[in-house]
Amino acid sequence: MNVLVVGGTGTIGSAVVENLERDHDVIVAGHSSGTVQVDLADSSSIEQLYASVGAVDAVVSCAGDAAFGELEELTDEDFDLSLSNKLMGQVNLVRHGVDVLNDNGVFTLTSGVLSQEPVQGSAAISLVNAGLEGFVRAAAIELPRNLRINVVSPPWVDETLEEMGADFSPSLPAATVAEAYRASLEGSQTGATIDARDV
Amino acid sequence: MNVLVVGGTGTIGSAVVENLERDHDVIVAGHSSGTVQVDLADSSSIEQLYASVGAVDAVVSCAGDAAFGELEELTDEDFDLSLSNKLMGQVNLVRHGVDVLNDNGVFTLTSGVLSQEPVQGSAAISLVNAGLEGFVRAAAIELPRNLRINVVSPPWVDETLEEMGADFSPSLPAATVAEAYRASLEGSQTGATIDARDV
Repeated sequence: MNVLVVGGTGTIGSAVVENLERDHDVIVAGHSSGTVQVDLADSSSIEQLYASVGAVDAVVSCAGDAAFGELEELTDEDFDLSLSNKLMGQVNLVRHGVDVLNDNGVFTLTSGVLSQEPVQGSAAISLVNAGLEGFVRAAAIELPRNLRINVVSPPWVDETLEEMGADFSPSLPAATVAEAYRASLEGSQTGATIDARDV
Repeated sequence: MNVLVVGGTGTIGSAVVENLERDHDVIVAGHSSGTVQVDLADSSSIEQLYASVGAVDAVVSCAGDAAFGELEELTDEDFDLSLSNKLMGQVNLVRHGVDVLNDNGVFTLTSGVLSQEPVQGSAAISLVNAGLEGFVRAAAIELPRNLRINVVSPPWVDETLEEMGADFSPSLPAATVAEAYRASLEGSQTGATIDARDV
């Protein structure tokens, strides 16, 4: 498969690229690094990305910023960022990518277990993650030409916690989480939220 | 209880008002009708609403527009409307209402079964409804002073389908759906998505 991995330079994204490159041709898109650049919060940047990459068999998104913070401290700007970047950025990857994917292609987005298992400070992120899962369930019904769409819900990954000096166990190594993205690409499910702890 | 019902003039909202008025003191807020007016898409309008109403024991929202339409036909504006109105409008009712609710008070928002049971044309609405449910799960953890928050997930209501001349069974009369809002107010659960078909 020709696979475009958006956010392929981040912690999870680079593990996904490493995993998929074993069997697939991978193009890495990043915000400022990678082979091609894209700003998820900007629809025209997404359109440019697809124009430059051309037809692919799979689009994987491991990208998107959202704001972590106490409910009473989250600002309008924190919600705006979360909605325009991680939520609508990934939705727009789908909306603008439908005509770019080859027949039987597959979109794989990223949410996170905070969708169903919130913690103190996750109000905006839980909203975004759950919204993505709802969108994916619905979009799967309408995609043409046997296109599929799934969303991977990763737990905290070890590498991120190590960087943060934090401990929100249970967590998984990014390389293990990457298997969930492979499952979305190579399986036949659509509309699914794939919990990376179950793969 | 003193209850503020936002969207208390709509199909579900007026049934909720009729139900709650049996035992509670209800203030009805509407977009253009009701005792007080509010534009959910405008944060300052929400702040004005709370300033004019004063402290209450419960805030119920049966309000919020979201766009129904095929994924390929939904415009940026359709998503903007859905996110700023039904999604962030209700989130902002909570953010600005935390300091207005009396101790042990309760927020009750409205999502819908399209969150978990999408249909052709529901991509934006499924996103919004699921996002609200994720937000409510997370916000429940952080609310101070024993405040609670739930979201009612109504199915299609008979009165709406009759107006539309449509049939998306199973549906319920609005008066039956109203019982789910009462359950949120008078029960002790928090962070819950209350499926109105189960009440």
